[in-house]
Amino acid sequence: MTSDPDLVTRRARLLGPNVPTFYDPPLHIVRGEGVWLWDAAGRRYLDAYNNVPHVGHCHPRVVEAIARQAAQLNTHTRYLHEVILDYAEALTARLGHDLSQVIMVCTGSEANDIALRMAEAVTGARGIVATDNTYHGNTTAVAALSTRRPPIGGRPDHVRLVPAPDALAPLGGSRDAQGAAFAAHVAAAIADLKAAGHGFAGLMLCPAFANEGLPDPGPGFLDDTVAVVRGAGGLILADEVQPGFGRLGTHFWGHEALGFAPDVVTLGKPMANGHPVGAVVARPQVMAAFREAFGYFNTFGGNPVSCAAAMATLRVIEDEGLQENARVVGDHLLGLLRGLSHPALADIRGMGLFAALEFHPDHAATCAAAVEGLARRGVLTGRVGRAQHILKIRPPMPFSRGNAAQLVETLEGVLGGLE
Amino acid sequence: MTSDPDLVTRRARLLGPNVPTFYDPPLHIVRGEGVWLWDAAGRRYLDAYNNVPHVGHCHPRVVEAIARQAAQLNTHTRYLHEVILDYAEALTARLGHDLSQVIMVCTGSEANDIALRMAEAVTGARGIVATDNTYHGNTTAVAALSTRRPPIGGRPDHVRLVPAPDALAPLGGSRDAQGAAFAAHVAAAIADLKAAGHGFAGLMLCPAFANEGLPDPGPGFLDDTVAVVRGAGGLILADEVQPGFGRLGTHFWGHEALGFAPDVVTLGKPMANGHPVGAVVARPQVMAAFREAFGYFNTFGGNPVSCAAAMATLRVIEDEGLQENARVVGDHLLGLLRGLSHPALADIRGMGLFAALEFHPDHAATCAAAVEGLARRGVLTGRVGRAQHILKIRPPMPFSRGNAAQLVETLEGVLGGLE
Repeated sequence: MTSDPDLVTRRARLLGPNVPTFYDPPLHIVRGEGVWLWDAAGRRYLDAYNNVPHVGHCHPRVVEAIARQAAQLNTHTRYLHEVILDYAEALTARLGHDLSQVIMVCTGSEANDIALRMAEAVTGARGIVATDNTYHGNTTAVAALSTRRPPIGGRPDHVRLVPAPDALAPLGGSRDAQGAAFAAHVAAAIADLKAAGHGFAGLMLCPAFANEGLPDPGPGFLDDTVAVVRGAGGLILADEVQPGFGRLGTHFWGHEALGFAPDVVTLGKPMANGHPVGAVVARPQVMAAFREAFGYFNTFGGNPVSCAAAMATLRVIEDEGLQENARVVGDHLLGLLRGLSHPALADIRGMGLFAALEFHPDHAATCAAAVEGLARRGVLTGRVGRAQHILKIRPPMPFSRGNAAQLVETLEGVLGGLE
Repeated sequence: MTSDPDLVTRRARLLGPNVPTFYDPPLHIVRGEGVWLWDAAGRRYLDAYNNVPHVGHCHPRVVEAIARQAAQLNTHTRYLHEVILDYAEALTARLGHDLSQVIMVCTGSEANDIALRMAEAVTGARGIVATDNTYHGNTTAVAALSTRRPPIGGRPDHVRLVPAPDALAPLGGSRDAQGAAFAAHVAAAIADLKAAGHGFAGLMLCPAFANEGLPDPGPGFLDDTVAVVRGAGGLILADEVQPGFGRLGTHFWGHEALGFAPDVVTLGKPMANGHPVGAVVARPQVMAAFREAFGYFNTFGGNPVSCAAAMATLRVIEDEGLQENARVVGDHLLGLLRGLSHPALADIRGMGLFAALEFHPDHAATCAAAVEGLARRGVLTGRVGRAQHILKIRPPMPFSRGNAAQLVETLEGVLGGLE
């Protein structure tokens, strides 16, 4: 594991304090290909964490699409261009529930920022419900829903957070009762928002509860909640930034896996394999209400290069069967992971190429040590959870059975050395 | 002038209503090079409007930098990488006033959204002042400062808008009194914010007042205002998205041309020649306060490809002498424009490669007809101003004397045919 003290010093000088890094010391990564990253010393790392390079680091088809379009034209959507329309057609063809109209933006944060305004435009209200252990982006409006760091002066009064699904401490006890318990919390939050005069605009959530630690509450979990939200006149905003584009294996979207029909879907990170692209997909009535109330123009959003990158990414997912790979390799990986044992391990779960090893919350240090130990042995993972006690596995989609074996063997070795 | 009714129909179906286009019918642009754009029928247009392709459409050095880095590595800033540091060093070397630390983001909107929070972090207050004829981006937080479309339920109470500088109706009458009059309005807005309990965080403005119609109030205009803002404990947030990177010719930044020292500078559109890149540059104390209060991570912001694109753009500006070109050609262009006459023309002004032909506000239709007429004759311009009565000229920076001559000759012909 190589780092570079000089880069750390320059970073602090040029980027300021508290800029997050992974691993201690942080890695100096210089090259990527497929599921592999290389550091400046030439050491190779198996990437079992990054979902942004969805079809693999530096996939040649995506690189070529970017290079070709960048050399031909890169301008805004106030001129007509085919590629945004071709992409919008290909994308919406993958979505049901009349989710047929698209705004292209540059980041998932921009997408979620719009989704909140869509709910506001449709309902005329501002009240938003989200879970109490989540993250939906970094703009002022969406950061207000984040539990990582409460805003100065406290959370805005039009935001209410409900207890997130939790695999170790499930709301409502039995699996069947969990959905009802979550819905009851949402109903209470809505009543509270209405009593406070904010009204209710919608519920925003990640259908895989990825930042909540991937609790996997199972299909149907949201049935009661959807009924509550619709009954209260609100919209359901599905943040598909993490689960979307086939990662869960069984389904192309998280909301399909969980089994509900969102009014708005937001997309980001993996959409264009690292090119800054995000999107909002909505029903025509929702889109019309937003456009009427707010207008919207995004200078870079939907430019031909961004759309070419997104289109190439989508085609590679299809042509290389990456959703099916996520299902097959994900199942295999989960089987291997379930063979691990360590006294601090509380739960092992996963959906496709998204897995969580939950340590007992008071053993977060063991989780941290495992992540560091893996990195020192050339395997990159991350942490999530209220206590950062959940080891997060979310590799690029071309992850193979061999990669899964390397990950689990390395993890076995690391865990064996940890108290 | 060719358009494509089929694309217009597909656009409405896939992107929804009220998605803005330029020109009637809108252009179907398929290729760009330098100051030129081509439509699907092969017709060539002189681009005298787009500032995003700052060093020229599809500049080969920028395209090559993007293609090379995209093939090598494109990941986030939680790993160490040189290119973000090299770029931050090169960028901050162009800025004075201790503006020495950088956050890289994807859009000018994201940059301004952060700048507002920086002011909040430093002051502990939320009150913001901006002009009443401006635009600082499309996130919820910065859209609240826009006068294009007031938010649902009215503008947030922590925002106060002051009368924008206006070339035809200058506040305070004489040129000397204008700055004092503007400062008095800012002082009143600050007092109002404090009385309402919001406190005062800062003043956000574009140092060229680009969206205000480029009124060119002259150096020193903000002297009194700066004293007022500092006296009230607020920050000065300079939105350099339009004037930055040498466009004004005499200076690399708008705040240098106007002669004041901002606390925060935000960057966007031209920064990476169309690649989705923006940035916030701040003093270390401001950065530290923001990082402490808000944290911040942007998945795509500062990735190696974005930084390579931004670095190549900066190098081309320097290597091709584009700031000096903006000064020389801009002066030449302004001289030619001042030779134009039409009864509806009220004022002709410019700074470098940024010019405004202001029509009498009740002759906005003439301005619209001029822009459409120019497009039909193969020259692209746009409109700005309270009544959209100002013809906006803001071409890519390699604009030549010959391009200027073509623009002005074509404009002369168009104006000659308009009542």
